Amino acid sequence: MKRILIVGGVAGGASAAARARRLNEEAEIVVFERGEFVSFANCGLPYHIGGDIPGRDALLLQTPQSFKRRFNVDVRIFHEVIEIDKAGKNLLVRNLQNGEVLREPYDTLLLSPGAAPIRPPFPGIDSPGVHTLRNIPDMDRILAALEQGKPRHVTVVGGGFIGLEMMEALHQRKLEVTLLELSDQVMAPVDREMANMLHARIREEGVDLRLRTGLSAIESLDVLADPAAVTAERRGGLRLTLSDGTHLDTGLLILAIGVKPETQLAAQAGLELGPRGGIKVDAGMRTSDPFIYAVGDAVEETDFVTGESVLIPLAGPANRQGRIAADNMLGRRETYKKTQGTAICKLFDLAVASTGLNEKRLVQLGLPFEKAYVHPGSHAGYYPGAHPVSLKLLFAPDGKIYGAQAIGKDGVDKRIDVLAVAQRAGLTVFDLQDLELTYAPPFGSAKDVINMAGFVASNHLKGDTTLCHAAEVQARHPHQVVLDVRNTPELDKLGRIPGAMHIPLDELRGRLDELPRDKELLISCQVGLRGHVACRLLSQHGFKVKNLSGGFKTWQMAIAE
Amino acid sequence: MKRILIVGGVAGGASAAARARRLNEEAEIVVFERGEFVSFANCGLPYHIGGDIPGRDALLLQTPQSFKRRFNVDVRIFHEVIEIDKAGKNLLVRNLQNGEVLREPYDTLLLSPGAAPIRPPFPGIDSPGVHTLRNIPDMDRILAALEQGKPRHVTVVGGGFIGLEMMEALHQRKLEVTLLELSDQVMAPVDREMANMLHARIREEGVDLRLRTGLSAIESLDVLADPAAVTAERRGGLRLTLSDGTHLDTGLLILAIGVKPETQLAAQAGLELGPRGGIKVDAGMRTSDPFIYAVGDAVEETDFVTGESVLIPLAGPANRQGRIAADNMLGRRETYKKTQGTAICKLFDLAVASTGLNEKRLVQLGLPFEKAYVHPGSHAGYYPGAHPVSLKLLFAPDGKIYGAQAIGKDGVDKRIDVLAVAQRAGLTVFDLQDLELTYAPPFGSAKDVINMAGFVASNHLKGDTTLCHAAEVQARHPHQVVLDVRNTPELDKLGRIPGAMHIPLDELRGRLDELPRDKELLISCQVGLRGHVACRLLSQHGFKVKNLSGGFKTWQMAIAE
Repeated sequence: MKRILIVGGVAGGASAAARARRLNEEAEIVVFERGEFVSFANCGLPYHIGGDIPGRDALLLQTPQSFKRRFNVDVRIFHEVIEIDKAGKNLLVRNLQNGEVLREPYDTLLLSPGAAPIRPPFPGIDSPGVHTLRNIPDMDRILAALEQGKPRHVTVVGGGFIGLEMMEALHQRKLEVTLLELSDQVMAPVDREMANMLHARIREEGVDLRLRTGLSAIESLDVLADPAAVTAERRGGLRLTLSDGTHLDTGLLILAIGVKPETQLAAQAGLELGPRGGIKVDAGMRTSDPFIYAVGDAVEETDFVTGESVLIPLAGPANRQGRIAADNMLGRRETYKKTQGTAICKLFDLAVASTGLNEKRLVQLGLPFEKAYVHPGSHAGYYPGAHPVSLKLLFAPDGKIYGAQAIGKDGVDKRIDVLAVAQRAGLTVFDLQDLELTYAPPFGSAKDVINMAGFVASNHLKGDTTLCHAAEVQARHPHQVVLDVRNTPELDKLGRIPGAMHIPLDELRGRLDELPRDKELLISCQVGLRGHVACRLLSQHGFKVKNLSGGFKTWQMAIAE
Repeated sequence: MKRILIVGGVAGGASAAARARRLNEEAEIVVFERGEFVSFANCGLPYHIGGDIPGRDALLLQTPQSFKRRFNVDVRIFHEVIEIDKAGKNLLVRNLQNGEVLREPYDTLLLSPGAAPIRPPFPGIDSPGVHTLRNIPDMDRILAALEQGKPRHVTVVGGGFIGLEMMEALHQRKLEVTLLELSDQVMAPVDREMANMLHARIREEGVDLRLRTGLSAIESLDVLADPAAVTAERRGGLRLTLSDGTHLDTGLLILAIGVKPETQLAAQAGLELGPRGGIKVDAGMRTSDPFIYAVGDAVEETDFVTGESVLIPLAGPANRQGRIAADNMLGRRETYKKTQGTAICKLFDLAVASTGLNEKRLVQLGLPFEKAYVHPGSHAGYYPGAHPVSLKLLFAPDGKIYGAQAIGKDGVDKRIDVLAVAQRAGLTVFDLQDLELTYAPPFGSAKDVINMAGFVASNHLKGDTTLCHAAEVQARHPHQVVLDVRNTPELDKLGRIPGAMHIPLDELRGRLDELPRDKELLISCQVGLRGHVACRLLSQHGFKVKNLSGGFKTWQMAIAE
């Protein structure tokens, strides 16, 4: 009888245990989890803190008992694996409740230890009131601190998924929130101009968002102040020193600046690590030891587009890897099909989602790429409830899809899902024109957002309407002139690009003689659609033209500070 | 200078006119429209009647004036083309306002006449109070009849897209509605068991749905009755004779039993028609005459899966075809990439959507196929607002995707979009397991509906868990036994399959000796997931098993009357 040991009982480990049992009724399957909980909804933690998920029990998807009953899997909580003996094929495991250390032999071992929140060695990092969020006890501690300390103000450090979700959760609890982000944007998977839409939305909610601002030190207000001066309100509070030298007093600090793979056990055992510091695995999720597999946030994955090793700590890949590792541990031959990094985050009434590579990464890689922006409605504009989907599509000169990003109040998940599938299937931007998607007025448009993006990208690559972008408009040469073709009330209401000429599209044919024939015209409308019509019109009348992709709306996103 | 004439100014014709102008600033482009309106939102008509779209103007997307200003296209409303002179390359056009007939020469002609609602020669079909819905005047007439006649009860004939939308619109206006459908289901693109979910929802709203019931004759109540007996309420009303011989008195009748392509003009001109009675075109949208193109509901399209000629009167294909026809009319070489028939319809709080072939069609075609049902939540169950997505996946024994259907309150459009792209890209059900879709608790699950469908289909094809369906359960042989593995409270609350044995999944390992080893066990749970676990468990203990796909929930849908 085969003995399978699994280290870590959340996403990847729990998936693997259940799959292994479905494949093999005879194997002995043991899961070691150093914490109290297995298979909990780690993605749900911020939503319980914010109150969207009222019952804590909803987060506890499985218990050791339910795992035993359903899958005959032996889940040992409060058991920490402290050493892997590769040669002897056994583990040293410490029972955290009684201190006992046991030797557990295995035929096959699966590592699913996850990734730990990064806690940089700031002075004061271990002060009470400094929290990270990885598991149920972390969540319980944060909730207890909020309920007992009753802080008025909280600070979240880091504008990634967890940082944004925690910011929203705390804001929803009517707390004043400061969000610190060291870089110039939140939500690193999207590019800066897209993130600027998020910055605006965050500030609109009254959150004190500070970009390009990191944390330097943390001091306890209790220690710092004259005891007599510590008011009840400030008791337990923290004084933060920020990277700009200023101070910020806060009641609670959430550190959400990223995670690092838990590789200590693997490294000690001499398992090979990858260039990014994660456990190295092959496509079958096998480590450098043929009897040891690894999955989830602790492993390096292969980027779908570039083939590079990447760290992508997401739940979807972890779950699929767990399943595939179980298959291979039990003699099947399945491969994990690389990671696009498809992800989504709710931000108040917005969703922001992305798949594949972003522009920052393409620039780093030195890959030639093109980009297109569109802002069509999530469904037919004449049916109530339509909202713009702001979509950025990145593609190669041959039409290959590199990546996509979208932000909006409705239908963002759907569009990125469609593009993730298109990218995975090897479709090009030309193919996007022909995709036949569901359409009725409450759900889409006869020409869907995706079709529109395909039209714009294809028109550009075919040379029908060459696109330009905000950077070119901002740094324009003397031979370039911006021509705004919107209607006058739009300019008055929405603003204008400094120095732009203005002729409304519908007057253009009659006013061609006002336009300079020796200049290149950079055409701008609101979202790029009328600009395209103007470009087609003008190019046929002999003008040199480019269309500002995504129009004034994208330009505004791009130049926002 | 090239002269392009376009017959019909709605979806396909309007798209073609705009695209032609973008490609060619010089061409003379004239659109003839026999009605008053061009480029109106025909898909929005029922929603204005129902009140969701309050302003009628919202439906008027373009006017002849706006087309002229923006695109320099000459739109002639109230102009009916009465003859095509292919040899002479000109049209005879009647000005409906003054009766004048003009001869209009063309270099290239585009036919976009659409399809007309079918009006069978029922006795009384021309009675006042009998309506169809194709355009703005039809809508205006229905609204006037509702407002002036103030009927208490209305009857809709036909359970297709327009029939269902009109049923909902009239129900929303607080009218009593009877919906007659001659076949045994509404919404022909999906299969009967899926449609049964819709039947239940329709009846839940208090609509009098009568399946297998057609209309035989219509009589005016005014004529029929003793004038003294015609109450104000019944004035203008109709007495319907139904196919079952019964009578139904109603205030208004909407006929929505389908459309037929408008081919009279094309046929008179000797253009080739296809086997389904639509205008025959090649992949470039060209008819049998090299100078005449045709698009939209009037033409036969090529089915994406079978390559057969089909009539698919949908807005998306019409718009894309218009664009492609314009390209080709102006010397490009673009092809229309066949039609999957991807479609969606809102039905109260449900959406029903489909793409590709349904089971009825696969049976007609005699193609070997398999099917799988899943009912996962639209997003993580622990986050509020998740609703089941009931999805049916049809596929070939080699994993090729034939088609998909889904019904639910949330996320139906997204899943069918993903499957439409997967089908178009040639992905198999095996690939669905690996799709990397957006996941955060408000939007999806780490294992999305699509992944789940891929797992179930793949498990079936790989022989890991062979599926069975309601028909096999209902007609089971003496060597087959149904085993329900749900928990006792579920059986009590939700019902059970007659004659089924019952052992809850979590007790199964301990009660194997209660199960017959000489029988095949058809395993049933609520949605198929626990059934799969039970199948894997039992098959490894030497039992012959099949899993009832989609569980008790699908079985109930399938046996509903």
